[in-house]
Formats: sequence, C-alpha cells, structure tokens
Amino acid sequence: MQIAYIQTFPLFGEKEMNFREVLNLTCTLKTDLLILPELFATGYTFASKEETTEMGEFPGEETTHFLQLLSGKTGGIVVAGFVEKEGDTIYNSAMIVADSEIIGIYRKLHLFNKEKLWFSPGNKPPKVYRVRGVNIGIMICFDWIFPEVTRSLALQGAQIIAHPSNLVMPHCQAAMVTRCIENRVFSITANRIGTEKRGEDEFIFTGMSQITSTRGEILSSAPGDKTYVGIARIDPFQALNKKINPYNDLLADRRIQGNLLID
Amino acid sequence: MQIAYIQTFPLFGEKEMNFREVLNLTCTLKTDLLILPELFATGYTFASKEETTEMGEFPGEETTHFLQLLSGKTGGIVVAGFVEKEGDTIYNSAMIVADSEIIGIYRKLHLFNKEKLWFSPGNKPPKVYRVRGVNIGIMICFDWIFPEVTRSLALQGAQIIAHPSNLVMPHCQAAMVTRCIENRVFSITANRIGTEKRGEDEFIFTGMSQITSTRGEILSSAPGDKTYVGIARIDPFQALNKKINPYNDLLADRRIQGNLLID
Repeated sequence: MQIAYIQTFPLFGEKEMNFREVLNLTCTLKTDLLILPELFATGYTFASKEETTEMGEFPGEETTHFLQLLSGKTGGIVVAGFVEKEGDTIYNSAMIVADSEIIGIYRKLHLFNKEKLWFSPGNKPPKVYRVRGVNIGIMICFDWIFPEVTRSLALQGAQIIAHPSNLVMPHCQAAMVTRCIENRVFSITANRIGTEKRGEDEFIFTGMSQITSTRGEILSSAPGDKTYVGIARIDPFQALNKKINPYNDLLADRRIQGNLLID
Repeated sequence: MQIAYIQTFPLFGEKEMNFREVLNLTCTLKTDLLILPELFATGYTFASKEETTEMGEFPGEETTHFLQLLSGKTGGIVVAGFVEKEGDTIYNSAMIVADSEIIGIYRKLHLFNKEKLWFSPGNKPPKVYRVRGVNIGIMICFDWIFPEVTRSLALQGAQIIAHPSNLVMPHCQAAMVTRCIENRVFSITANRIGTEKRGEDEFIFTGMSQITSTRGEILSSAPGDKTYVGIARIDPFQALNKKINPYNDLLADRRIQGNLLID
C-alpha cells in the first residue's frame, strides 16, 4: 500500500489559490491514501468567530467537492482538514473521502490556543473508518500531545493514523515516533509551512511532515520550509499484530486506565 | 533541588558486590533524590521461580537496610528496584526510602518478556508519594511503553517520575521526552549496563540513563557502556503548572479516557 502527504503553504482566506496549490503538488500523484494539512483550504489564523462562520462549510459544499475530485484524480482515499459548519456551530474538522463518498468527519477534540475562541470542541469520540480493507483513524494537530487519542484509535483497531496538522510547537514529530511504537500503528502527519500574522497573532508553522512506521522508523520527513510531497510504501497488516515478543502484547498487556487497575 | 541517578553493572546473584559498587559510585555524593536501576542488587536474568524466591526479600531485610544506609549517607530520598516477597508471591518492585523510613513500595505493573514467568504482576495502582515536600511517582522499566502509567502518576500530582530500569529496547529514552512533555513532569530513568547470559537468554542492557525536564530537555545522559553518576538541578515546582499557553492545560484539557468522552 502506498501512502502520502502533501505539505502546503496555504494563503489565508484564499480557497481557490489553496486548491490550485494542492492540484499542482499532486498533478502526477497516484496513491492509495493522501493526507492534507489541517484547515488546508482556509489557512489557520482566524481573528473572529464571524470569520470561521464565513469560511466554514457544510459537508457537501466546495471543499468536499474538491476533495472528491482529488480522490478521483489520485485514485486514493483523501483525509484533509476543513472548517465545518453544523447549524450555527463551527468545528475544526477533518473529512475522509473516497471517490465521491464522504466516509466520515472527525471534529478536533483538543483545540489549541485561540482556536478555543473560534471553534467548538469536537463532540464525538474519535472513530476508526474501515475503507478499502484498511482501518484509518483521524486526529488533528494538537491531539498528538494527548496519548489518549492515538490509544483510543489503536484500541478500535486503527492501522494508520491520519494526522492533518498546522504545527507550531517543536515536539510533535519525535512524539509521533513514541505514539507509533506504543500503539504499533503507522502515522502520517501532514503539516504546513509559512507564517501567518493577523493582528497580534503570529504563527510560524514548522513543516517537517512525517510518515512513521509501527516500529518508529521515519519513512518520510519533509523539510521545514518548503512545500513537499512525501510518499512511503507500507504493509498495513504490520499494525494488526501487537505482540512485541512471545510474552508481551502492547494492547492486551495494559493494566491501568485513568488511575484504576483494569484487571 | 538536586536529583541524581547511578547507572550500574550488577553481577547476577552477587548482592554484596552490587552493594559495594553502589557505595563506590556514591562515595562523595550528596543529593536530594537518588534513583538506582531496577533489580540493582540481584541482577536481572532469572532462570526459575525458585531463583527469584531465593533472592527475594521481605521489606526490612538486607536490601532495605542497604537503601536506608544509602539514604543516610547521601542525605536524600532513594528509589531502587528489588525482588519483593509477600508470602509466597514474588514481585518486581521498587522501594522509596527516606532515612530509616520505607515510604512506599511500587510493584511493576507491566512485566516484560519472561519476567511473567518469575514474577507476579503488580496488584496495586501506581501511587504518588509526598516526601519532603515533593510528589514522587514510581514506575519500572517497561512501564514506559504504556502511556497510562505516567499519565496516572501525573493525574495524581507527581512532579518527578522515578524510573528504575533494566532496558534492552532502544526507544525508551526518546519516549521519556514525550512522557515528560505530555505530562509536564520531570523523569529520572536509571538504567544498567552490561550483558547477562543465562541458558538461552541473553540480554544486553543499554545504559544511557537520562534525566528529562518538564519541557523535554535532556538534563543528563549517561553513556551506553559505562557506569555513571548523573546529576541535575531542577525546580520541581515547574511540574505543578500544566498550562502551556493562556488557553491550554495539559491535564484539564483532556477529552477522552479509553474510548469515552469525559466531558
């Protein structure tokens, strides 16, 4: 199975330009699974709830159509971040699409910094989607720092963690090695690059998108300051066997949950 | 506050020699907290349950006396691994001692490899001990790969994770950076060096003991093949504030436990 990410430099509020950048980066790409960054179509640094409302979309609108197009063109499943509307509520979400079908939508559980002002926190537990024979779990950016998220996805059988991101802190890439080892899963962190300055807020996005194997090997690592297409070939079945020796199984051996012994 | 570890090369079954090595390494050491490796007095590679029974001790016996002596000599709290007997049951445990007092005993929850044949799994949740004004949590070696352990200790207020180890896998040191960042705690991994070959079992212990800060900085790192004394000065109060920006708190922001939303 071939998996891939694109590392982009979105321009704030310029959906059409951002779609075009994605098409340019993927113009010859054929792949089974493609991950795009968080909020790839809109940019990140919102300044008001009105802005997120204005740029937000219901499933089935413009960004959905673009992702369906992209899935058809690349031939693979696509996971990408977008501003989701549900009634008057706005979520920082990621959509998983295969051909013309919306497989599911994940709403970011752990909002970072002022996202708490512009978005509502995800209102559903993380979920694993079985698509074309592979179990895919989604988390978004800052979710990485909470081990509960990847763990929950692994306990549900995720083989690959799709991780659209807009990272500004330095520790995620190394932490994803730990996440993959402790859960025996693959992960694809699709980050963005560039700087966004709006009002008093300035964010420098760190690039270095990364594909990590179940054994913690870094299969692809992007530069910190360039757009990039990262590709790796993996065997997703490696994520199904959690035994690390004849005596230890990474999930079955768990003894505690919260502060309580679970056996 | 000064914290320290010693990285030793225990000889299997030679308690007196192993005590002497510890005394040699610590002969001029004064410190507030000192961590020794897992099973520092006995060595690691047991070959039968009879052997663990033979070398095991009830609290208050030989190894306890040695740790009380060491606490008095160094002036600090001591945490060290030992083979614990309780009735006919044998645990891979770690004792925390201050002067002549046994503060507590932690029984390893996640047994590695054939430890499952020689030891019983810990039967109590991990616990935080408040000693001389600082909250200390204990975990042992392979517990590192289960994020639930450090998390549980952090949720109980641990400022410092004492981590006696006999590591043979390569990923723990980097994972401890993630553990410290995701929980905003300090950690002290006291590992051993050397090879033990008994029957068909051969373990190469990897050294590289490590003190890690709440921000993921490596404050001390030992070589992979030499005995070593590692020391760092820390401010344990840095572990009490879990806010990483005005909007995010690493513990209060948690949304899921297991697969369930917790708010």
